[in-house]
Amino acid sequence: MRRLFLWMARNRWLERNLPRLPFTRRAVARFMPGDDADSALNAAADLQRAGIPAIFTRLGENLTSAEEAAEVAEHYANLEEKIAAAQHHGEISVKLTQLGLDFDEDLTAAHVGRLASRAARNGTVWLDMEGSAYTERTIAFYERLKPTNPNIGICLQSYLRRTADDLQRLLPLEPAVRLVKGAYSESPSIAFHTRADVDANYLALAVLMLAARRTGINIRIGLGTHDLRLIEQIVGHATSLGLPRSAYEVQMLFGVRADEQRRLARGGFAVRVLISYGSAWYAWYMRRLAERPANVLFALRQLLPG
Amino acid sequence: MRRLFLWMARNRWLERNLPRLPFTRRAVARFMPGDDADSALNAAADLQRAGIPAIFTRLGENLTSAEEAAEVAEHYANLEEKIAAAQHHGEISVKLTQLGLDFDEDLTAAHVGRLASRAARNGTVWLDMEGSAYTERTIAFYERLKPTNPNIGICLQSYLRRTADDLQRLLPLEPAVRLVKGAYSESPSIAFHTRADVDANYLALAVLMLAARRTGINIRIGLGTHDLRLIEQIVGHATSLGLPRSAYEVQMLFGVRADEQRRLARGGFAVRVLISYGSAWYAWYMRRLAERPANVLFALRQLLPG
Repeated sequence: MRRLFLWMARNRWLERNLPRLPFTRRAVARFMPGDDADSALNAAADLQRAGIPAIFTRLGENLTSAEEAAEVAEHYANLEEKIAAAQHHGEISVKLTQLGLDFDEDLTAAHVGRLASRAARNGTVWLDMEGSAYTERTIAFYERLKPTNPNIGICLQSYLRRTADDLQRLLPLEPAVRLVKGAYSESPSIAFHTRADVDANYLALAVLMLAARRTGINIRIGLGTHDLRLIEQIVGHATSLGLPRSAYEVQMLFGVRADEQRRLARGGFAVRVLISYGSAWYAWYMRRLAERPANVLFALRQLLPG
Repeated sequence: MRRLFLWMARNRWLERNLPRLPFTRRAVARFMPGDDADSALNAAADLQRAGIPAIFTRLGENLTSAEEAAEVAEHYANLEEKIAAAQHHGEISVKLTQLGLDFDEDLTAAHVGRLASRAARNGTVWLDMEGSAYTERTIAFYERLKPTNPNIGICLQSYLRRTADDLQRLLPLEPAVRLVKGAYSESPSIAFHTRADVDANYLALAVLMLAARRTGINIRIGLGTHDLRLIEQIVGHATSLGLPRSAYEVQMLFGVRADEQRRLARGGFAVRVLISYGSAWYAWYMRRLAERPANVLFALRQLLPG
């Protein structure tokens, strides 16, 4: 099932045609408040009232020109102003390939540095993690920028075997880490391929971050997962380590386990919701379906009338 | 399947009658070289030549008198002398209920203290962990004895929710920990009950011990598992943490994955094999069958002729 959707994510014919079907758009609406930043900001305002701040990200594909990258950077700079104006505790997440990583790393660094310096209330600018072809470059990019831009964060994926190394490599930088399981199709030689292994590694990486925090390393810990049993296990370990609930943050996607998001926030946990928007949602949405059978069920229900 | 064997482990009628069947004894022989200490020592000599030292334990049930406890203590004291005479790097593992914990904790402490002081080359005297009724008392007992008996170790079970707390509680003592998944039937309120949760917690506890070791805490880490995928994940994390293979030890049972034991030892890993012996093997053997479907298959094969 997971492989089917990851194949669909890469299929160009489906990418052109599936989004035209009305039921597809209805299904996607569950995870995406709209195509533009204002829809995302409106959805965030509701969540903010429930004590749940947001991370905003515009969906997009790899770019090939400096002009396109400048347009994306400009878009995020405008978004930062809107976040500041709305007095949200909002943050942004960017894909480095959207800011020019494929053709000009210095340009990308300039864009990220500018967005970080302008972030409202020094909120974090998160670097998203893409397929494994970009892992090393993204980690190295983070190592390069973090010392002069303290408010940037990075996403690490527990399905990659290298992530334990990457975490140890980044710890001296006192990083902000958004830990996810990983949603791309990767080879077993570089990635764990059973759910149990990916989950166990997720828990291990999370407790290593918590243990580092306990020893005084100023790491920001974002748990990017909807797996409540995993969250429960991590909370148990955090408590054993004597860490308060403010020592970490649960980060979920807009529309996924929305009730749980509010329940956790009411229970005193720091919760943050990632809101995606934009027209390039097809591949992103297929990866969401690959992640969770429950999402597929929801999508199929949109096929039924009324 | 697991529950069936755990039920069989507690059934008194089966305990009386199953061991009389020849095929049962043939099946048990795979995991137990014999009924007495000399059979265990002979088996250990073979393993020692392959660079694999042993931990010896005599199987037994809860005792009710000081005389019985004294007999067990005397047995282990004799065993320690035989280990020293054989120049094995052997260690022993004891069950506290076999040394009087149910009726006289001070007496038990005296027995354990004496065995620890006499252990050959200061090898560790391991305290086994029994069902959850004994967890708190065993932890407290360890806290009491460890400061004056540096060479005692304790077994912790990853299926218990409390174990993360217990580990943090014991770390300041610089403990020797044999980490196992756990083989008793415990309530979901105190124990994880899916294999994935138990495994994930095992990995998390192992990496927490490795991380503690990296920060300079002199903890001895025994990985009591036959789960090779789990071991592989732990080795990956140990490497990421910059720890050598000598920083931890794989501890397996005699006869379980014997080829892997030798393969790991040849590969430079510290491996130790737990050899059980004695006539009270019925409940112990049923817990082994509950642990692994492969063990059941082996047992069933003994039913076939030739």
